[in-house]
Amino acid sequence: MNTSKLPKMLYGGDYNPEQWDRSIWPEDMRMLRLAGMDIATINVFSWSLLQPSEDSYQFETLDAIMDMLHENGIYACLATSTGAHPAWMAHRYPDVLRTDFDNRRRKFGGRHNSCPNSPTYRKYSTRLASKLAERYKDHPALLLWHVSNEYGGECYCDHCAAAFRIWLQKKYVTLDKLNEQWNTRFWGHTFYDWEEIVLPNSLSEQWSSTSTCFQGISLDYTRFNSDGLLDCYKLEYEAIKQYTPDVPVTTNLMGTYKPLDYFKWAKHMDIVSWDNYPSADTPFSMTAMTHDLMRGIKGGAPFLLMEQTPSQQNWQDYNTLKRPGVMRLWSYQAVAHGADSVMFFQLRRSVGACEKYHGALIEHVGHEHTRVFRECAALGDELQQLGDQLLGSRLTSKIAIMYDWDNRWAIEYSSGPTIALQYVDEIHKYYDALYQQGIQVDIVSFEDDLSPYDVVLAPVMYMVKPGMKSRIESFVQAGGSFVTTYFSGIVNENDIVTLGGYPGELRNLLGIWAEEIDALFPDQSNRIIMKESLGTLQANAEFNCSLLCDLIHSEGADVLAEYGDDFYAGMPVLTRNRFGSGEAWYLASSPDAEFLQGFLRELSAQHDIHPLPGKMPNVEVTRRDKDGRDYLFIMNHNADSTMIDLGSNRGVNLLTGHSLSGQTELAGRDLLIVELI
Amino acid sequence: MNTSKLPKMLYGGDYNPEQWDRSIWPEDMRMLRLAGMDIATINVFSWSLLQPSEDSYQFETLDAIMDMLHENGIYACLATSTGAHPAWMAHRYPDVLRTDFDNRRRKFGGRHNSCPNSPTYRKYSTRLASKLAERYKDHPALLLWHVSNEYGGECYCDHCAAAFRIWLQKKYVTLDKLNEQWNTRFWGHTFYDWEEIVLPNSLSEQWSSTSTCFQGISLDYTRFNSDGLLDCYKLEYEAIKQYTPDVPVTTNLMGTYKPLDYFKWAKHMDIVSWDNYPSADTPFSMTAMTHDLMRGIKGGAPFLLMEQTPSQQNWQDYNTLKRPGVMRLWSYQAVAHGADSVMFFQLRRSVGACEKYHGALIEHVGHEHTRVFRECAALGDELQQLGDQLLGSRLTSKIAIMYDWDNRWAIEYSSGPTIALQYVDEIHKYYDALYQQGIQVDIVSFEDDLSPYDVVLAPVMYMVKPGMKSRIESFVQAGGSFVTTYFSGIVNENDIVTLGGYPGELRNLLGIWAEEIDALFPDQSNRIIMKESLGTLQANAEFNCSLLCDLIHSEGADVLAEYGDDFYAGMPVLTRNRFGSGEAWYLASSPDAEFLQGFLRELSAQHDIHPLPGKMPNVEVTRRDKDGRDYLFIMNHNADSTMIDLGSNRGVNLLTGHSLSGQTELAGRDLLIVELI
Amino acid sequence: MNTSKLPKMLYGGDYNPEQWDRSIWPEDMRMLRLAGMDIATINVFSWSLLQPSEDSYQFETLDAIMDMLHENGIYACLATSTGAHPAWMAHRYPDVLRTDFDNRRRKFGGRHNSCPNSPTYRKYSTRLASKLAERYKDHPALLLWHVSNEYGGECYCDHCAAAFRIWLQKKYVTLDKLNEQWNTRFWGHTFYDWEEIVLPNSLSEQWSSTSTCFQGISLDYTRFNSDGLLDCYKLEYEAIKQYTPDVPVTTNLMGTYKPLDYFKWAKHMDIVSWDNYPSADTPFSMTAMTHDLMRGIKGGAPFLLMEQTPSQQNWQDYNTLKRPGVMRLWSYQAVAHGADSVMFFQLRRSVGACEKYHGALIEHVGHEHTRVFRECAALGDELQQLGDQLLGSRLTSKIAIMYDWDNRWAIEYSSGPTIALQYVDEIHKYYDALYQQGIQVDIVSFEDDLSPYDVVLAPVMYMVKPGMKSRIESFVQAGGSFVTTYFSGIVNENDIVTLGGYPGELRNLLGIWAEEIDALFPDQSNRIIMKESLGTLQANAEFNCSLLCDLIHSEGADVLAEYGDDFYAGMPVLTRNRFGSGEAWYLASSPDAEFLQGFLRELSAQHDIHPLPGKMPNVEVTRRDKDGRDYLFIMNHNADSTMIDLGSNRGVNLLTGHSLSGQTELAGRDLLIVELI
Repeated sequence: MNTSKLPKMLYGGDYNPEQWDRSIWPEDMRMLRLAGMDIATINVFSWSLLQPSEDSYQFETLDAIMDMLHENGIYACLATSTGAHPAWMAHRYPDVLRTDFDNRRRKFGGRHNSCPNSPTYRKYSTRLASKLAERYKDHPALLLWHVSNEYGGECYCDHCAAAFRIWLQKKYVTLDKLNEQWNTRFWGHTFYDWEEIVLPNSLSEQWSSTSTCFQGISLDYTRFNSDGLLDCYKLEYEAIKQYTPDVPVTTNLMGTYKPLDYFKWAKHMDIVSWDNYPSADTPFSMTAMTHDLMRGIKGGAPFLLMEQTPSQQNWQDYNTLKRPGVMRLWSYQAVAHGADSVMFFQLRRSVGACEKYHGALIEHVGHEHTRVFRECAALGDELQQLGDQLLGSRLTSKIAIMYDWDNRWAIEYSSGPTIALQYVDEIHKYYDALYQQGIQVDIVSFEDDLSPYDVVLAPVMYMVKPGMKSRIESFVQAGGSFVTTYFSGIVNENDIVTLGGYPGELRNLLGIWAEEIDALFPDQSNRIIMKESLGTLQANAEFNCSLLCDLIHSEGADVLAEYGDDFYAGMPVLTRNRFGSGEAWYLASSPDAEFLQGFLRELSAQHDIHPLPGKMPNVEVTRRDKDGRDYLFIMNHNADSTMIDLGSNRGVNLLTGHSLSGQTELAGRDLLIVELI
Repeated sequence: MNTSKLPKMLYGGDYNPEQWDRSIWPEDMRMLRLAGMDIATINVFSWSLLQPSEDSYQFETLDAIMDMLHENGIYACLATSTGAHPAWMAHRYPDVLRTDFDNRRRKFGGRHNSCPNSPTYRKYSTRLASKLAERYKDHPALLLWHVSNEYGGECYCDHCAAAFRIWLQKKYVTLDKLNEQWNTRFWGHTFYDWEEIVLPNSLSEQWSSTSTCFQGISLDYTRFNSDGLLDCYKLEYEAIKQYTPDVPVTTNLMGTYKPLDYFKWAKHMDIVSWDNYPSADTPFSMTAMTHDLMRGIKGGAPFLLMEQTPSQQNWQDYNTLKRPGVMRLWSYQAVAHGADSVMFFQLRRSVGACEKYHGALIEHVGHEHTRVFRECAALGDELQQLGDQLLGSRLTSKIAIMYDWDNRWAIEYSSGPTIALQYVDEIHKYYDALYQQGIQVDIVSFEDDLSPYDVVLAPVMYMVKPGMKSRIESFVQAGGSFVTTYFSGIVNENDIVTLGGYPGELRNLLGIWAEEIDALFPDQSNRIIMKESLGTLQANAEFNCSLLCDLIHSEGADVLAEYGDDFYAGMPVLTRNRFGSGEAWYLASSPDAEFLQGFLRELSAQHDIHPLPGKMPNVEVTRRDKDGRDYLFIMNHNADSTMIDLGSNRGVNLLTGHSLSGQTELAGRDLLIVELI
Repeated sequence: MNTSKLPKMLYGGDYNPEQWDRSIWPEDMRMLRLAGMDIATINVFSWSLLQPSEDSYQFETLDAIMDMLHENGIYACLATSTGAHPAWMAHRYPDVLRTDFDNRRRKFGGRHNSCPNSPTYRKYSTRLASKLAERYKDHPALLLWHVSNEYGGECYCDHCAAAFRIWLQKKYVTLDKLNEQWNTRFWGHTFYDWEEIVLPNSLSEQWSSTSTCFQGISLDYTRFNSDGLLDCYKLEYEAIKQYTPDVPVTTNLMGTYKPLDYFKWAKHMDIVSWDNYPSADTPFSMTAMTHDLMRGIKGGAPFLLMEQTPSQQNWQDYNTLKRPGVMRLWSYQAVAHGADSVMFFQLRRSVGACEKYHGALIEHVGHEHTRVFRECAALGDELQQLGDQLLGSRLTSKIAIMYDWDNRWAIEYSSGPTIALQYVDEIHKYYDALYQQGIQVDIVSFEDDLSPYDVVLAPVMYMVKPGMKSRIESFVQAGGSFVTTYFSGIVNENDIVTLGGYPGELRNLLGIWAEEIDALFPDQSNRIIMKESLGTLQANAEFNCSLLCDLIHSEGADVLAEYGDDFYAGMPVLTRNRFGSGEAWYLASSPDAEFLQGFLRELSAQHDIHPLPGKMPNVEVTRRDKDGRDYLFIMNHNADSTMIDLGSNRGVNLLTGHSLSGQTELAGRDLLIVELI
């Protein structure tokens, strides 16, 4: 993103003045300025206002808003308003309405409610984006485009069915190929005509959103649906680019949101932005991991924190207030992981409808004398002070965790071996083990280049896509350490098993064969017994493992630990296969945190990868760097103060200007941004 | 109700001889007389029998039943049979069938199954009521009309959609006004044509029965639906009144049943009646409260206990038998709270279909030698003895609790701050605190005159309707004590927030400002610490509070207690604002029972309101009065006997004729009705 | 079944070579032979392959498979492939698709997916069966026909509705009779025209699969649906018999599967076969009982174990591996209860779709060097050794437990007295009490001849069908002991209550009257106090009882035990009525296992029925006999070895040829088959 227009962290959020009488607009402007804000995401849900009927467009209100923002020194993150269609459109053109998983044509209501393959929707959403771009292309307030809003959901209408068949023809070319890759001879589902294919929902192949008779069709539908929504985005993107080729375009993503393959999406976004809504009990490391994922989908580029709540949410079961200091701390957590903005939903609380109890900069009371406003304004001051120092800086890591949407979908569609296997939770186990030690991680896709890394973790790499085998083997050959786990190497990209013994295409690399896979009940566990010492994991030490236990045989791999219990006691549970100059590790069961931290600490150390300074329990650390300068973020998630030890590092706290070295006390929910010197 | 025809508590219940061969009717009559019964609710579900085809009506069976009742000295509570339409009608006129929340047109089945806006239903239900009234208007058995049965449920068909649009036009006149009050600019839902409005169900604005994108439309639909069913009732009411203007008309209500605004309904009922089906674990005070509500909706007038089970229910998960004495005790509990009848569902158990395991006077065995029959007959004797002494007596209270259906609907549609806020449970907390101390309460609507009361409690008065502000302020001005709580004063009658700071229209009266609202998890609590003594609540004493914590500031109110924990420790949790001659109290969080009892005891005492004599743990007390005489009900819900202390009161136990004073032993599940002298 | 073709236990399983490239077939054959297999269930889901379009049939692949099997000495259990229709058929003839309980017409997908009353389905499924029979009638590999697969499910389409009306007309002849037996006057549901009757689903009379407004219609629909699927089976059966009158025909049943009345089905099956899929935590006695039921539906004839998994399932939540030895032990458990085969699903794991993680003889690795294969091959060897010794042997028992599908349906449709009453679990309580003592049991229908038995248990005989009264009375008259329980004798075959006092038609026989039925909460219990000693149940001993408590009066029966608690303490809980030469027992509440074992031990002993030798905790024993020889199965379900005491019995272990007598050690999960001498 071109940051010359606004050389500082963007600070602002969603703002909907069109929902209010104009008489309060001046007061809004006064308060936004008071809070140090410089960007407002506008026009997110105004389609019905902009296009009150099929043939008329009215931009007067939006003109006034754009002008007002500019007059007050605030830039616009200008949305295209296509996240919810107008009521008149649903009434006149029912094809814009979605058909749900139960095959019911919906009626007008809600948002994110348009069929992605509706001709009406595609026509009018593109036209609106085009008209907006044409009108505001030269407006001085325009900083950024925001297409639609939080794309998501599914549709199962006849338009989608027809589009699905075309998508399939493009992928498989022949029905023979499709029948083979879906294994339709099973249960005699062979298709002899493309028209026989119906969408997989609760009336056909699925009995729940994650249970299907045929993984092939369900997986392809999921891809198709992600692609279809992406097509809608791309149509608007292209319409906009015709008028403003240099203004960056984004849409707000949702972290680990399952239905959309954000690695694919990010390719078509000029800058990634996302909405961060942790629950009160979300682990800090889960939020951290999600930031890293949002950075990872665009190859490490800085991203925008597009939304977070300044105080409380409304849609949780129990909407706890963010305690004093938490909003600031979590804002910087985003920055610490690569964000170049701090933005809120929302700047003024709505007066009616379902989000009126969601926190806002300007509360219903309407003035600035609130805790929430004061905290926001103080943060605004700080961000002003920080200026452009951190802008565009990157995080550097020698360890990567591989993450993949297709893999997740396939795992979670799988019938067997266990319902307890949730991909994001598994990824988080490994991420957390590094996080707890202050070791910085990148999250990469199954397609990304692995050469920048020394260690690559690929937990539950169930699906091995074309080309991965050689890519991973080359990585290890060249000296890298590769780690994968139980239930890996099982299927190809269409969920067809790689025959000849698990872990399939990875078997040679790993030097093992997984003969069987045992699923444990939630109250069951086995033991990992170390056969030899590995870093801090002492020989004969015991750890717990659970979830799944692969019954593996070494085919050349060193056995570092064995199962302690059950009929497979004595079989390997941790193996290392030397391959070229590197090593390929296999973890046959899901270990406890103590084992995992010890194992990954040792693996890191072997590659001279060490914790960042300042790590303490519940103190999070990251480092951004830019132009040869290193910025260390040390964030105290504890409510109480903690002593931080910088070791031999020295620097200046950018938030205070104070020099720092050795030990320093960090207040509860406070942070340091140390420019190392 | 004109009680001259039957100068005693009505005693009887639902009776369906048309479901049986006539040969058993004489035995029924013998047993009803043996049980001392004098009223039978008949003809509740006989539409298919009365109108076997579109053009034919057959009243012979009903004639015979009416005559038989009369010959046996039993009066008829004559139902209109419109609670379930005939199968032929559903087959011929599908518009009588409802469309459910999932927008599925139902088929024939069940009961309470007619669309309230079906032209066919309205036409034929009114015609049937009219024919019945015409035919039986002079029948000597006729005592009371019973329209339909347990009105309830919803319909989402096209007839309802059309009627809803008309209802909305009547309410809002213009679409502009509707758009404003529903805040449709949020998410761009602006309507430009009335036809664009669709009913809010799972296909449009709602994702569950209590979750909606737009509170405005959902709230209006709920009102519309309550009104539509009431219209059906009124059509029959008016048809009946043309023939029998002096015979009272009722329909059986269901206590705190959520979908119908019974305050509105009661205006059109000559006498309220209701069906009391507590579970085995329903608190006694919840039943008591519900009786008080049923009395309250008709301004304190006596009501009828229309249904209860003599022994067990069939539709609970575990249908426990009422223990010996419980049926009698709970019957008198109804009387103690204002009932002028004791009636059962049912007099004879059906031989087939889904209610055959519901208790009845006459069980499947068919004779009177059962525990249940004996208990019923003994009660019949007692009621005979009591004669008309209690008939028409009233309960007098100086404390009122405000209750409102609109308020409940709006609270439970709210997205945030917590799913744990259930209106009836909140009301019950306050009711129970008084109940446990033997302090009698009235339940009044948001529209009722408050001048008869010294103390008015309005827990969770989330919605402030037009006119309420001045009415409550006048009440306090004149010396009353008003108490409200967390999450009050937030919105107007359409769920639009009153801007300018919570509690909105009540802010001036209460002298506080609620800056934020924190929602606690179920396992969390805060502490209430008394700053000064208040009655038995000692200075520095501590109590628990939970659910919600408003973060309030005093704007003139006295702070009597503060929070003990969290970042808002030290902020007010109990405030009192002197206003005119009275006081307005605010409870910022939901306190434990100990605090609430102490607080309300003191508040009562300040107004010289004292517990009724005889109150003991699990012993319930109420007082009815009539013509200057006071009747004290003392009911022992314990299984074991308890000593009762009448203090300085003296009287005669109407059930035994014995004089009572000072201490007296009351057997388990026994009661006293003491006429005080 | 004619066993001359293959004079040994059948050993094999489901095999789907048509889902694979032919290049692997030779390897399959090699491995099947290696495992000692001699039967393959083929062609289960090949309809789309056999009939690729409406007018073409292609049998080449099946020909090749049949020939291959024959060449390799393997017989075919030849399925008809009608368990899942082709996609083209669903596309062209939507009437083959089912309409679900929510009245939604399904789309193509899944299996067991054809409407049983679809004209298209009936026409083409029969035609296919006919063509297969004609083509393979003389094929030397043909051993057995397998019609369709795991019949089940329901349909609610218009074809079914029309067929239902015809079914009803046949049953009731007149609407008057139907109205009477459904008690339609209740809630005014009287039908005046057959066309007014709609199927009972979630749009009409039911609000869940077990909750209905009218038990009569729901019960009849359930029977109709079972009959309709049976008709489909019979159509194919008859088509096959035209060509191969001497080849036995079966279809694979599913144990206690609720929707199908297998007693009716078995009448039309030449041999019963079933699929045994216990969960890891299914009690061994539940599996044993289910085997006995599958034997019982065909009057004790040997049956086939058609499917079980060799290792793990895929559709459980947590798919635990069968521990070493368990597959063998459970295979013999089937044999011990009357199976003449050991067969698996599946012989080769599929490469894609939803069952690919279900265990198989040939795993994805594709070779024989797996634990699972080795265990299967070892079992193959053993079965070869056993030869035909056990084939056709029977189990003999003097105790029968009565089981009935109509009774189950009626109980589980009942509204009240408790949702905790689950028929299969109740039957299992009584079965288990005998199982734990090594007493062998037959399971018989409500229609079966009771004269072979000395003791008949009929737990929860809620429904008394026509003729049962006299049949049971004759049994007792002649000296038998009959035991029934709470909630028995209540209704006729249409769920209409037998008036005059529970237990209705059984009242005279039992000499008691049940006045009331109390339902206990799950955490509640009462006590059984023995009034006199009964075998090992000492006078004054106390036991727990729960679930339901009938409040009974003796009308001549001896009272052997009384309730210990609650207001019915002192009322009878166990009674015995002498009737003719026998005794009729009534258990008024559900007792604990200790009581039930003691009670049934004594009852057995009184009839000189004694435990089989070798019974120990978790050691199961049964006996098959044939031609005067007795084969004792002693199966150790413990993981560890146990000492077995044969007492005075002597014999030879058929599995080892060793002589056995007195005490012998039996290894964990090992078994003995002792031919007694």
